[in-house]
Amino acid sequence: MFNSFGHLFRLSSFGESHGTAIGGVIDGVPAGILIDEEFIQHELDRRKPGQSKLTTARKEEDRVQLLSGIFEGCSTGCPIGFIILNANHHSADYSNIKDAFRPSHADFTYTQKYGARDYRGGGRSSARETIARCVAGAIAKLALREIGVTITAYTSQVGNLKLQGSYRDYNLAVAETNPVRCPDSMLAEEMAQLITEVKGKGDTIGGRVTCVITGCPIGLGEPVFGKLHAALAEAMLSINAAKGFEYGDICDHLDQRGSQMNDSFYSSAPGTSGIRTRTNHSGGIQGGISNGEDIYFTTTFKPVATVLMEQSTVDLNGEEITLCAKGRHDPCVLPRAVPIVEAMAAMTILDFWLIRNGQQLKK
Amino acid sequence: MFNSFGHLFRLSSFGESHGTAIGGVIDGVPAGILIDEEFIQHELDRRKPGQSKLTTARKEEDRVQLLSGIFEGCSTGCPIGFIILNANHHSADYSNIKDAFRPSHADFTYTQKYGARDYRGGGRSSARETIARCVAGAIAKLALREIGVTITAYTSQVGNLKLQGSYRDYNLAVAETNPVRCPDSMLAEEMAQLITEVKGKGDTIGGRVTCVITGCPIGLGEPVFGKLHAALAEAMLSINAAKGFEYGDICDHLDQRGSQMNDSFYSSAPGTSGIRTRTNHSGGIQGGISNGEDIYFTTTFKPVATVLMEQSTVDLNGEEITLCAKGRHDPCVLPRAVPIVEAMAAMTILDFWLIRNGQQLKK
Amino acid sequence: MFNSFGHLFRLSSFGESHGTAIGGVIDGVPAGILIDEEFIQHELDRRKPGQSKLTTARKEEDRVQLLSGIFEGCSTGCPIGFIILNANHHSADYSNIKDAFRPSHADFTYTQKYGARDYRGGGRSSARETIARCVAGAIAKLALREIGVTITAYTSQVGNLKLQGSYRDYNLAVAETNPVRCPDSMLAEEMAQLITEVKGKGDTIGGRVTCVITGCPIGLGEPVFGKLHAALAEAMLSINAAKGFEYGDICDHLDQRGSQMNDSFYSSAPGTSGIRTRTNHSGGIQGGISNGEDIYFTTTFKPVATVLMEQSTVDLNGEEITLCAKGRHDPCVLPRAVPIVEAMAAMTILDFWLIRNGQQLKK
Amino acid sequence: MFNSFGHLFRLSSFGESHGTAIGGVIDGVPAGILIDEEFIQHELDRRKPGQSKLTTARKEEDRVQLLSGIFEGCSTGCPIGFIILNANHHSADYSNIKDAFRPSHADFTYTQKYGARDYRGGGRSSARETIARCVAGAIAKLALREIGVTITAYTSQVGNLKLQGSYRDYNLAVAETNPVRCPDSMLAEEMAQLITEVKGKGDTIGGRVTCVITGCPIGLGEPVFGKLHAALAEAMLSINAAKGFEYGDICDHLDQRGSQMNDSFYSSAPGTSGIRTRTNHSGGIQGGISNGEDIYFTTTFKPVATVLMEQSTVDLNGEEITLCAKGRHDPCVLPRAVPIVEAMAAMTILDFWLIRNGQQLKK
Repeated sequence: MFNSFGHLFRLSSFGESHGTAIGGVIDGVPAGILIDEEFIQHELDRRKPGQSKLTTARKEEDRVQLLSGIFEGCSTGCPIGFIILNANHHSADYSNIKDAFRPSHADFTYTQKYGARDYRGGGRSSARETIARCVAGAIAKLALREIGVTITAYTSQVGNLKLQGSYRDYNLAVAETNPVRCPDSMLAEEMAQLITEVKGKGDTIGGRVTCVITGCPIGLGEPVFGKLHAALAEAMLSINAAKGFEYGDICDHLDQRGSQMNDSFYSSAPGTSGIRTRTNHSGGIQGGISNGEDIYFTTTFKPVATVLMEQSTVDLNGEEITLCAKGRHDPCVLPRAVPIVEAMAAMTILDFWLIRNGQQLKK
Repeated sequence: MFNSFGHLFRLSSFGESHGTAIGGVIDGVPAGILIDEEFIQHELDRRKPGQSKLTTARKEEDRVQLLSGIFEGCSTGCPIGFIILNANHHSADYSNIKDAFRPSHADFTYTQKYGARDYRGGGRSSARETIARCVAGAIAKLALREIGVTITAYTSQVGNLKLQGSYRDYNLAVAETNPVRCPDSMLAEEMAQLITEVKGKGDTIGGRVTCVITGCPIGLGEPVFGKLHAALAEAMLSINAAKGFEYGDICDHLDQRGSQMNDSFYSSAPGTSGIRTRTNHSGGIQGGISNGEDIYFTTTFKPVATVLMEQSTVDLNGEEITLCAKGRHDPCVLPRAVPIVEAMAAMTILDFWLIRNGQQLKK
Repeated sequence: MFNSFGHLFRLSSFGESHGTAIGGVIDGVPAGILIDEEFIQHELDRRKPGQSKLTTARKEEDRVQLLSGIFEGCSTGCPIGFIILNANHHSADYSNIKDAFRPSHADFTYTQKYGARDYRGGGRSSARETIARCVAGAIAKLALREIGVTITAYTSQVGNLKLQGSYRDYNLAVAETNPVRCPDSMLAEEMAQLITEVKGKGDTIGGRVTCVITGCPIGLGEPVFGKLHAALAEAMLSINAAKGFEYGDICDHLDQRGSQMNDSFYSSAPGTSGIRTRTNHSGGIQGGISNGEDIYFTTTFKPVATVLMEQSTVDLNGEEITLCAKGRHDPCVLPRAVPIVEAMAAMTILDFWLIRNGQQLKK
Repeated sequence: MFNSFGHLFRLSSFGESHGTAIGGVIDGVPAGILIDEEFIQHELDRRKPGQSKLTTARKEEDRVQLLSGIFEGCSTGCPIGFIILNANHHSADYSNIKDAFRPSHADFTYTQKYGARDYRGGGRSSARETIARCVAGAIAKLALREIGVTITAYTSQVGNLKLQGSYRDYNLAVAETNPVRCPDSMLAEEMAQLITEVKGKGDTIGGRVTCVITGCPIGLGEPVFGKLHAALAEAMLSINAAKGFEYGDICDHLDQRGSQMNDSFYSSAPGTSGIRTRTNHSGGIQGGISNGEDIYFTTTFKPVATVLMEQSTVDLNGEEITLCAKGRHDPCVLPRAVPIVEAMAAMTILDFWLIRNGQQLKK
């Protein structure tokens, strides 16, 4: 039940870091969507390690194989199964953690919950699991493209370096032109230096990713327990290392009053179809339902738990030991988290679109 | 589907602000729990308006009637149905909003989604809906009490006034002794003054509520898409006016490095059952699964949208109008949000306990 | 979780035979449906006891109170909560079964599962629970009426007395004109005599109810695990005393070959919109999906377990005892099962319609 | 959503007859189960075509590859992904059906629902989809074995040839020694002759499969909408060609009265743990909950729709055509349906065991 995400559009995923493959089943894909495999691979490539000096040096090819649900280039309405073979195993790198509970990893809780764990590379708790999300997210994006919805995420903070102002102040396409994925090239350079410095010390650093959804039709999201922002929060906090979520810009302005944060309506055109809000502090969602304005939200990620420094911990028997991670690890999860945030957002929006509109994208 | 919350422990709720009643069905209550009706009413009373000058002056009695699922004072394992009659209607207060889209309310999105709306007091989007949550949360608390779990929330920020330090620095029981529900009496006094000042201007103010869960057994929560903190985030963001969620304390310390934020394990006693973490930046959840430490998280609430000031907006036809709210409204949602946060947390924890341990609380 | 039925259109119900009330929450009602309360009460009245000499002599008024989700006479899209107060308690009638496990009742399994049970009138396992289904089914019928779907059930067998031929051979409206609810008046008379005879001996008798759905659009139902007939089977077997389900007429013709049971397609009009099947052995569903022909299926009900005769059984301690039921009971569940079968069918069809078409009945 | 089966133990499957692979994700497998791959392959082999002259002559190797969720030979509690490559494609065999709606197949409904279909070998509606069920069912059986539950199905009727008496009158192990899978060797021979005769005419024949579950603990199944038999009915009717379901033996004895069909309780040993029923007409489930007696039920299957004879139908444009199937097809689905019935039953029972007892099989 809990390796599935979504209601009508649903990903069920499987796979461990060092098992045979990562994969999944994508259910609820509307029929007749052109399945652009290059685009899907492109989305996977945005996530893969080894893209720059800021990410881990591990080389993982991560070629997706789509196994079903596609006929003559289009989705058939039947589930799309897929796998990505795991290729680049360095099991030897992990022998030292076999009996150790790494600080702030899932080793301890998995062992307590399941009685044992696949200790190779974090097993199921590894961020390799997010590969499956990127595949499903890419397919969701292909569907959303047909109804005019775009989803764009970017790095908005690394450590103390915070992008100033609003997403509206930047050309978000710039984000993909630098390894940090920040739409401000100058700040991106500073962020890169900070990450490099932290990496040099064997340490890690956290930050924030902001995501903007444009073109979302009015009326997605359900009152009370299916609020669109609550679904987005659940989606974002299912990503490894995520610690916080906020939407709109009110959390950053708690010093402001209601009168300052309310979004007044006005008519941009005659009739009811032109009703807009002058400001968008709400973040495109009111009463849990999309209002037609841009949806935007921010997810906070902690520093990666794996530091290349000696740490004190205990082993399986509770004996105190000293542990020092080896191998190639991300000093900062942010740049690679960007496509994962987009993927989860795309799945969420498409899911609620289907709940609202039924299973035929084109009627 | 979306007026239900939870998997095995599930509240399905109904009711509008000015309808006949608020109520619901609580499914999955383990059999044999002593149903302490006074406690349930007490939890409802903590939420009700008119408790102090800081909350709305509306008087709502909100007496719960439990209609099923209880026999000889104990839960039977069958669903508990309940209603709370709506008594104190001032429909006249709302006639001026019948045709208006109030800024940052759900009027516009409900009308767009459903074609019409119950405009009396916000209808289903009214915070009166949270009464049902308090009833279900109280019953969840009664069950959790039997397995040693406690849940305590408090106001940790109002506007710019922020409680310093950690929840461990305070006697949380103090929170219930002042109308703001802040465990620092002095700060509570400042907060109360600020709220009073804002109220005097017809304006509103937001802030944050922090919640601490103690005694949660190790192993609750599911990897990948059922992470315990993701479920808590979804729960909290389903509350009216909630805009953000974070757990642990890492979001407040983005300037820190991984080596500073990791929680080292140590043995508090011989054997594996004594394994603890020296710090708890993680907030009691690692890899999505409870690790036996205190769980704590913070929810951010926006200023209430209803301000007693003139605001520009449009009516149902898109015509620009000026609107001024009347009636009695909360200048700050925080004090009354505290029991709602606790209720949602209690439901979430019990739900995951049942998934983990099955439907018999006592075996 | 298990006191809820349906996905997007969902009833969550509560209530025991001798508790305060039966009730529920109906979620997913499309907005803008005219809620005809007289029709809802009429459907309840079709189910109520005491309608004729063939049913129990208990008088239960069963007035439904709709508590939410309706504004100015129409559904708002918000959940409809409702209760039916339990009025006619004869608790004394049940004192003799307090410590006994009645044969083929749920007394034993409930006690084993929950540790105790509400022994008054069967508690939650009482057929009074089906009142809630009739309310939700009536509302589903009101919605289906707007899209041209009709649902009609009738008694097709009592004991060995079996209606011959197909539903197409009868005027189904006749069923509501006799107390057995059989569309063949002559057979209905025979059935009534048989039930009366069985009742005279304190015994009970089973039979079958057939249901016909007309006007169901093509394309409802999902391949593999959401087949429309599988959903109908689950729905029917959730009704008290139901033991079997079959759809189409192939189960009755196992002596026939594939070549005889296949339904050939033909064109009733030019183009693809006129494609029909010449026969309808399939029962209107092929590959789990409605094909536009009439859907029909039959549910088998056992004889009511409560017989007014001495039976050997054991008590709570496993001691052998002799038990003789008292009070007023149905000798045959069939006539009153008819509206319940219709209600469950209506909920199922509307649910799958919403999955297919989204939440707006009228666009 | 609808390519998934189960709540806590859940199969999500994918794959078409002539796609690259069939596969799925099995979620909720309790940790620590010894995963006996030979047994899983054995279960698949029981289902595969070409086992005898009574089934299709197609040779399909159907080797399962388990891709995750297993470490050092045991389940880890993480999802088990798997694929079975499709090897034996005879696409040419299907070119004649590309534009035709085969009678009583899913061609028409799929095309209407999805706008197009994968016409090769039935695509997703092919019975090859059931391979995934056999894999998940085999894993469920491995788990159930550890708690003493056994599941055995057999052919109980072919055409008019019906096994007399009860399952208790036969050595069910005999079923696996003949190609029909009937526990009466003599009747099996007659059934085989009948199937051979039907096959010789290019025709097909239906029948019934009965399934017996022993060792099921008391208390599985949920009142009202989660009745164990309703879940079994849904499971069975999700199998291709299934048309009916019944449990216990009351449907076959509608001529009997309640007093004859009731199951009296008695004490087989002192105390409450020895309470049993003298007869078991109920089929091991009372009030929707298992009572500790054997659970048994029967599923009716129609004759396979593919007959090697000329049939009249229409093409995609509604033009009338004559169609004659080619290739190798099953004249009778029964023998190969037996392991699929067992698989679906195993998944259902384990799912409800987990709901009842939590996710740890061994504590």
